[in-house]
Amino acid sequence: MKQYHVAVIAGDGIGPEVLTEGRKVLRAVAQLAGTFSVSFTEFPWGCEYYLKTGCMMEEDGMEKLKGFDAIYLGAVGYPDVPDHVSLGGLLLKIRRGFDEYINLRPVHLLEGAPCPLKDVAREDIDMIVVRENSEGEYANVGARLYQGTPEEIALQTGVFSRRGTERVIRYAYDLARREKKTLTSISKGNALGYSMVFWDEIFREVGEDYPDVETHSYLVDAASMFFVKDPKRFEVVVTSNLFGDILTDLGAAIAGGMGLAAGANLNPERRFPSMFEPIHGSAPDIAGQGLANPLAAIWSISQMLDFWEERVWAKKILCAMERLLVEKNTLTPDLGGTARTTDVGDAVVRLLEESV
Amino acid sequence: MKQYHVAVIAGDGIGPEVLTEGRKVLRAVAQLAGTFSVSFTEFPWGCEYYLKTGCMMEEDGMEKLKGFDAIYLGAVGYPDVPDHVSLGGLLLKIRRGFDEYINLRPVHLLEGAPCPLKDVAREDIDMIVVRENSEGEYANVGARLYQGTPEEIALQTGVFSRRGTERVIRYAYDLARREKKTLTSISKGNALGYSMVFWDEIFREVGEDYPDVETHSYLVDAASMFFVKDPKRFEVVVTSNLFGDILTDLGAAIAGGMGLAAGANLNPERRFPSMFEPIHGSAPDIAGQGLANPLAAIWSISQMLDFWEERVWAKKILCAMERLLVEKNTLTPDLGGTARTTDVGDAVVRLLEESV
Ligand SMILES: CC(C)[C@H](C(=O)O)[C@@H](O)C(=O)O
Ligand SMILES: CC(C)[C@H](C(=O)O)[C@@H](O)C(=O)O
Repeated sequence: MKQYHVAVIAGDGIGPEVLTEGRKVLRAVAQLAGTFSVSFTEFPWGCEYYLKTGCMMEEDGMEKLKGFDAIYLGAVGYPDVPDHVSLGGLLLKIRRGFDEYINLRPVHLLEGAPCPLKDVAREDIDMIVVRENSEGEYANVGARLYQGTPEEIALQTGVFSRRGTERVIRYAYDLARREKKTLTSISKGNALGYSMVFWDEIFREVGEDYPDVETHSYLVDAASMFFVKDPKRFEVVVTSNLFGDILTDLGAAIAGGMGLAAGANLNPERRFPSMFEPIHGSAPDIAGQGLANPLAAIWSISQMLDFWEERVWAKKILCAMERLLVEKNTLTPDLGGTARTTDVGDAVVRLLEESV
Repeated sequence: MKQYHVAVIAGDGIGPEVLTEGRKVLRAVAQLAGTFSVSFTEFPWGCEYYLKTGCMMEEDGMEKLKGFDAIYLGAVGYPDVPDHVSLGGLLLKIRRGFDEYINLRPVHLLEGAPCPLKDVAREDIDMIVVRENSEGEYANVGARLYQGTPEEIALQTGVFSRRGTERVIRYAYDLARREKKTLTSISKGNALGYSMVFWDEIFREVGEDYPDVETHSYLVDAASMFFVKDPKRFEVVVTSNLFGDILTDLGAAIAGGMGLAAGANLNPERRFPSMFEPIHGSAPDIAGQGLANPLAAIWSISQMLDFWEERVWAKKILCAMERLLVEKNTLTPDLGGTARTTDVGDAVVRLLEESV
């Protein structure tokens, strides 16, 4: 029997609560499937840990994570720890350190999920965003000159390597081909004449190997408009780190809200563990009260199973979530219900059990 | 009698058509007001000009523009001229060359204008975005190393000077104070640890001079979500060049569409002329057919009058547009009507005449 070992970094705020539900669902799936088992190892890292130790994770943290089949991350961020410290020391450190260069984010309106847009049918919002996740605008390269003086200058450099750009674009082409979908590249060549002109060139170049894939290109400003005006234009989307960040939050807004948005940080070659996370923040204002919606964390489990090629179960989780959303009996306050975080996890498990 | 001299760069695609209507409206306003006159001088620059001469404008073009009270720009862009050439040689060149460091874009849902959002009242969408317009991500600093080889690297550097950042933020604080509105800064300090951490610091620093202004800060990803989920959070918004580009297109999407979106590129000290433009593109597919919506170009005229401190007339134009939108008899196809570009200009003039 296959054994999957999952490293759990519940992190801050609502992280622990929502991951508890995700783990519950994964455990139930393992039991129902009977073909694999899962184990969880918890790592107490995050802002609390930082306030005690001065580090967001143990010094040999990356070493410790190396052997796992997946990392399950809750949320990172505390009001009194600067974001660039907390994220740079944990979330972004893992994304970079494990070369998780693909950030895969479904923007898919489940049946029953709320949508703030008029005149849009459910089927119209069904994309998968492939976000570059290892370099680009997030390369963390920069400087501050003449700091604190009136002449101060801050420089922030986006670094786009051919290897880094090609591999994410190729991944997206492969995905579009496999799923028989169109592929849309989102960039900004008209104003960013180095990075984005380069991106556009590579998008065209790689495309020569995929004559069967229909492609489109949008400027990021126009794309953000069309996410709202006409989302059905987009199927598989490939874009840079920063643009992917912005567009997937916008995507979450049109596809049921942050309570439903999941993201997978993948190292497709499986040389390092991949990381799965709800993309919402730590929401300290509602932490510990049972108010947080665990569906994003549960969707991340579906993405984890998908990456393990347990596709049937990945799909079943989404179906269970969809039934939950349609029935509307067990939803958290953000979705207009009165259920508590644990109720939602329990309900998804029940629906999964009923489905077999 | 005051005399305003306007340089007209109609540019490409639908640019000439829509500016014709804007000029018609401005001429009518001057006549009705009786306190000032306007003159127009046309410059035939743009992509057509480029294809003939190799330049987007005359060599001494900037010199020629210097004395005008305003530049009225249509649209720039042709399918067979690379965007970074056409824009870099005209639109961006003027923004930079005349130190038009403020890009002012209303995101204001006029009565009668279509909105793609459910559950949002008209009054909920009423913001003014102050976009940095002279440096930042658009500084045009970068390089490509090892070009054409597998080792190629493209670098794109955002340059944020204290002077450049302070002045736009200060402008926004002044505006918020004058209008008694809240001010929201939109940045991305959690991932862009040089430029955006710097931005956030300056936002706080300058704020010390404005204890009476209520402030908020959003990450750009969260902001793009809330533009859709809860736009009433935003009143005066201040943000960087790139983020402003993205957010104002998103703003246009929620506030009636691109056919209504105007932008002013201001040099507030009036050392150089300011430039007023509809923010839509050249739309070559519909050019020359009388299908283009001139309301964005007309709204730019309102912004021009506002900058000249002809506030009453600036306001009257918006009221006339609002009546047109409510009456619905004379709208172009993008707004569900069958009117032609010129009909719309004529109708706005008629409504203005009726209003005095
Ligand atoms: C927390 C932050 C650094 C992160 C990002 O910008 O990538 C988040 O917004 C996300 O999208 O995962
Ligand atoms: C055309 C382009 C360079 C420009 C920009 O990105 O600034 C446009 O999108 C705008 O918003 O005025």
